[in-house]
Amino acid sequence: MSEIRKHYFLSEYCIIAEDRAKRPSDFPKASEASDKNGYSSCTFCGGAEEKTPFATAVYKNGKIFADAPEKRIPDWDFRCFPNLYPALSPVQAPLELQDTGLMAEPGYGFHEVIVESPLHGKRLENFSDIELSGLMHVYRDRTCSYINRKKIRYVSLFKNSGKAAGASIDHPHSQLLALPFCPPLLERELKAIRESKMCPYCAIFDMEKASPRLILENSECIAFAPYSSMGPFEVWILPQKHVSFLGDCSEQILFALGDMLRAVLRSYGKIFGNMPFNHMFYQLNSTPEYHLNLRLLPRLSLNAGFELNTGVYINTFSPERAASYLRGDILPGN
Amino acid sequence: MSEIRKHYFLSEYCIIAEDRAKRPSDFPKASEASDKNGYSSCTFCGGAEEKTPFATAVYKNGKIFADAPEKRIPDWDFRCFPNLYPALSPVQAPLELQDTGLMAEPGYGFHEVIVESPLHGKRLENFSDIELSGLMHVYRDRTCSYINRKKIRYVSLFKNSGKAAGASIDHPHSQLLALPFCPPLLERELKAIRESKMCPYCAIFDMEKASPRLILENSECIAFAPYSSMGPFEVWILPQKHVSFLGDCSEQILFALGDMLRAVLRSYGKIFGNMPFNHMFYQLNSTPEYHLNLRLLPRLSLNAGFELNTGVYINTFSPERAASYLRGDILPGN
Repeated sequence: MSEIRKHYFLSEYCIIAEDRAKRPSDFPKASEASDKNGYSSCTFCGGAEEKTPFATAVYKNGKIFADAPEKRIPDWDFRCFPNLYPALSPVQAPLELQDTGLMAEPGYGFHEVIVESPLHGKRLENFSDIELSGLMHVYRDRTCSYINRKKIRYVSLFKNSGKAAGASIDHPHSQLLALPFCPPLLERELKAIRESKMCPYCAIFDMEKASPRLILENSECIAFAPYSSMGPFEVWILPQKHVSFLGDCSEQILFALGDMLRAVLRSYGKIFGNMPFNHMFYQLNSTPEYHLNLRLLPRLSLNAGFELNTGVYINTFSPERAASYLRGDILPGN
Repeated sequence: MSEIRKHYFLSEYCIIAEDRAKRPSDFPKASEASDKNGYSSCTFCGGAEEKTPFATAVYKNGKIFADAPEKRIPDWDFRCFPNLYPALSPVQAPLELQDTGLMAEPGYGFHEVIVESPLHGKRLENFSDIELSGLMHVYRDRTCSYINRKKIRYVSLFKNSGKAAGASIDHPHSQLLALPFCPPLLERELKAIRESKMCPYCAIFDMEKASPRLILENSECIAFAPYSSMGPFEVWILPQKHVSFLGDCSEQILFALGDMLRAVLRSYGKIFGNMPFNHMFYQLNSTPEYHLNLRLLPRLSLNAGFELNTGVYINTFSPERAASYLRGDILPGN
């Protein structure tokens, strides 16, 4: 059982989820993970299906199945199941009455794990086109599935890779949290977009396509280091076509987004090897003003007292220089 | 030379400060710091005054001095000098003209180090009343000194303690960044406060003084775990009297704030030993609506993809339970 709490007087929220503290970690204590660590006991690996909750969606040879109590489906390509230590859950006991006027509501929602491969050491940057296309379809399917549930207002789709990026399990996986409210970051963006005369992201596309911050482009998308990057080597992937939601993306855009994600991860790998990072989808359903984008943040720096005090980020590596490394203009070590 | 950049279309900012990447660290590579590490080569220790920039303020026996080029002042109690790797600096070259309409301005401002003791292993929780009073006066003096400089709009006063909290030097010190703009977190608070009919912090004081989240109180302040805590064991210290700025605080309030800070740090120490944390002052000069407060955040969890995607924090330890530990109702290990 968890609880959604609103800030005393700002439109900001926390989820108090004490059960999440019980989740195990397969990372070794003193160092960053390598692909091999924890392999033997990994609950996300192919063959270990009994160790997770029943899968809500199992992708296998282009078809979708769901586990039944009497049989869990083996030999899958992608596997989705409820997080065993959920921050939000569809079944919630009523909250005890508070003696104050503060807002609290039960932590209603969904928290799903999307396992990206049965293989422990598989990495997205080495996916074949078919595997990549498969994953992007899973991302789209699961997002659409949850946004249509009762009372759900936002689907947060993201990946934590590496302990310093918040992962507690090393096996390659993404996560999805379906929330009963629109989160403050998206609310703020939407307010600013509605006050603009045109889509700011469409303008960003035109500007960054010809800027020194451009990293890569394909037929549908660009990848660039954003002008006001919150940390070293932050990257945004933006489709040229104004689409708001994964469910609105054509097959071409969907694949192009994944293709660009894979290319950026390969560039990261050439420079940093196996480095902790997050990637996150920013999208809004039934909100045609919004322009979907995908962001990557390597975890090369951390927020200190100044960032906590101000909300301003000190970034010690300019996005122009990061872009030149990520394009391959500058080789690592120079 | 650094650069202040605004987000494409939101009122959010980054400081691009590439020189800061060159700063050294005295922490050992693979583990959290202990008090002894780096002692022999520490540039912040008493006796090593030659290794830092000239001090802008040296506190000694209740008087304030400044270093002169021919002589650096020895045997001090507190010592303040410009950060050798500043995020902002008063001397800035004009920026090269950008080819876009994006906002950039030179990284004008001040970045100061406040060394809290000449002794490497000294910790705030062990300060005597006289030492504590001295430090709080330094905090007030330096804040007032910088808020009155040309073009300065906000003074961020904070401490990073431990590598995971963003410290690169183990010797006990705080930092001050004087900014030429009001940061977004304070802007957002101020907007909400101005829309309220009364001071939300005064209401918070009354509510939390009688809540299960109260940790400690003294004649002037309370310390409590905020209702919507962004992480485990977050603590806010709030004076009862509505004051907006350290410069407006009476001697009594100033000492009471420090006394409460010391008490909370002692409680942290009993539970966690030497743990990374930040403390930050939230204050606004010439803004009578604002209500000064001081916040502490132990670095026991980290922001992952969900927090980056939404701005919503998942907290695995309820503030009510954290308060009961910090009050000493529950002993560590239970």
